[in-house]
Amino acid sequence: MADAIVYDVVVVGGGAAGLTAGMFAARRGYKTIIISQDIGGQASTTPDIENYPGIDFIDGADLMKKFKAQGEKYGAEFKFDTVTTLVPKEDGTYLVKAATSEVTTQVVILAFGLSHRHLNVPGEEKLNGKGLLYCAICEPHFYRDRKVIVIGGGSSAVQAATTLSKLASDVTIIGSGERLTAEAVTVERMQAKQNITVLLNGETKEVLGDTQVTGLRVLKKDTQETVDLNADVVFVEIGYMAKAGWVKELLETDARGQIKIGPNCDTSRPGIFAAGDVTTITFKQVVISAGEGAKAALEADQYLLAKSGKRGGRIDWGTKK
Amino acid sequence: MADAIVYDVVVVGGGAAGLTAGMFAARRGYKTIIISQDIGGQASTTPDIENYPGIDFIDGADLMKKFKAQGEKYGAEFKFDTVTTLVPKEDGTYLVKAATSEVTTQVVILAFGLSHRHLNVPGEEKLNGKGLLYCAICEPHFYRDRKVIVIGGGSSAVQAATTLSKLASDVTIIGSGERLTAEAVTVERMQAKQNITVLLNGETKEVLGDTQVTGLRVLKKDTQETVDLNADVVFVEIGYMAKAGWVKELLETDARGQIKIGPNCDTSRPGIFAAGDVTTITFKQVVISAGEGAKAALEADQYLLAKSGKRGGRIDWGTKK
Repeated sequence: MADAIVYDVVVVGGGAAGLTAGMFAARRGYKTIIISQDIGGQASTTPDIENYPGIDFIDGADLMKKFKAQGEKYGAEFKFDTVTTLVPKEDGTYLVKAATSEVTTQVVILAFGLSHRHLNVPGEEKLNGKGLLYCAICEPHFYRDRKVIVIGGGSSAVQAATTLSKLASDVTIIGSGERLTAEAVTVERMQAKQNITVLLNGETKEVLGDTQVTGLRVLKKDTQETVDLNADVVFVEIGYMAKAGWVKELLETDARGQIKIGPNCDTSRPGIFAAGDVTTITFKQVVISAGEGAKAALEADQYLLAKSGKRGGRIDWGTKK
Repeated sequence: MADAIVYDVVVVGGGAAGLTAGMFAARRGYKTIIISQDIGGQASTTPDIENYPGIDFIDGADLMKKFKAQGEKYGAEFKFDTVTTLVPKEDGTYLVKAATSEVTTQVVILAFGLSHRHLNVPGEEKLNGKGLLYCAICEPHFYRDRKVIVIGGGSSAVQAATTLSKLASDVTIIGSGERLTAEAVTVERMQAKQNITVLLNGETKEVLGDTQVTGLRVLKKDTQETVDLNADVVFVEIGYMAKAGWVKELLETDARGQIKIGPNCDTSRPGIFAAGDVTTITFKQVVISAGEGAKAALEADQYLLAKSGKRGGRIDWGTKK
């Protein structure tokens, strides 16, 4: 393979944290690329964001498109790809390998967020994307007039069922416990819908289907009876987890797999920074992830300035350093 | 005095961090008030903000007005006042005393930012606001066709001189060192102006004037000669500092007077949180301060839920806790 292209900053992940990091790095004049599987990460799957300061109300996907365009305005490149490996090189740079490309960089900012938790049952891997989906509100055309199952009993599952019921022919929501754990008001809003069936104490055993989802095998834990339910589409809404396993050899992570960071988004390894939901940060909010992305880029700037022998600089309207 | 009004959350400071904290607290249904000397803090004095993600370009004061209105929409109250004292009460609440009012609260979020560094010379206190100003770009009508002096040699001083030269009759900038410390490009942009005089090695000794600024007494350090310069307006642009002295008895601060915080904006004292530039956070950016304000409010929420015996809740589109 020919020599990989050399960047100052490679941002892995294109959600609120990654897009902000990319914008801040590009504004400092660094050759910057954001490599991501999607635009906007989880924020893009949120239809109504009302608590991003300065913007009263906006669709999450629209907000993330604005983030992306703002970074591109200052020269940040964006590439759809799946980063699989980080290889530290002897000269202190990193080789970033993705599914279809690879680049060399001075600095890596990891901001690939959280991933949907999987079921880990037979049929799941095979039918992923073939009627088995992890984002209920992303692709309405998949479930219009279809028979739909939502797996999960928390707020996102209940909200998903409510939303899906508008277009789907009917919706079954399967909670694993004695009751749905979503807030009362959310459950009530769902129960007002006519075409939603609630099934409790259900444990998913298998996703059924050959090349396309046809149904779901569920153990009814109270009666120990196994039932096969028909479905055209199954949505998995059982929460999120950090999928940072592929950097575990390089970086310190916590028991939940989240990347440990210092106050300025530095990791246990020089030249690698991390920001947003993939880190040990507690709260999941667009404005918090954006702030963390900015911190990571500014700390990366300090690192690059120190490395090149220049003093840490003052930037935009200033740092306190 | 009658019983002070009882709040769940009092935010001290109305900049990016404080306004965001107020909005997040109010959205969680807490009775919230923001007490501040101004609207928007330092962000309001920045005419062009280009790096707030999601908004391409906006005047800082306009952005801060949006922040404020968004909080008020969810019930956050706003009051102009100067908080002077925090008194911990036996029941775990706090009495917040301000110049013209006092309130009792469960939680205090300190977000009063940084203050302009003062000269600490004779005449400064007396003439503060009477021709002696700390924000060069806030009040253009003060210097139109006037003879202006800017004290300071860094980026904000040089930028201020450049901006002022458009309206002022003439501008003298006084740096204390051998050269101006602003970036080369900023200095060059200033030097292109005809009506700006640069005076180096200058140490301000006194602000002259009785009820209004008439000039400045400056020691020329290279010749040890003292000169009196005439001026209608003097701008002090010598940086910022945390003025957290009034909470020093209650909270841990660092050598620079900044409030020490943990990763979720908790301070050394339960029930008191801090966010933004007044804390030990490194970088000074609107989006970072906003993110920190959100963290402080969400952590305050956890504190209040724990105190009331409720479990830490899931909010908006979720926490990772």
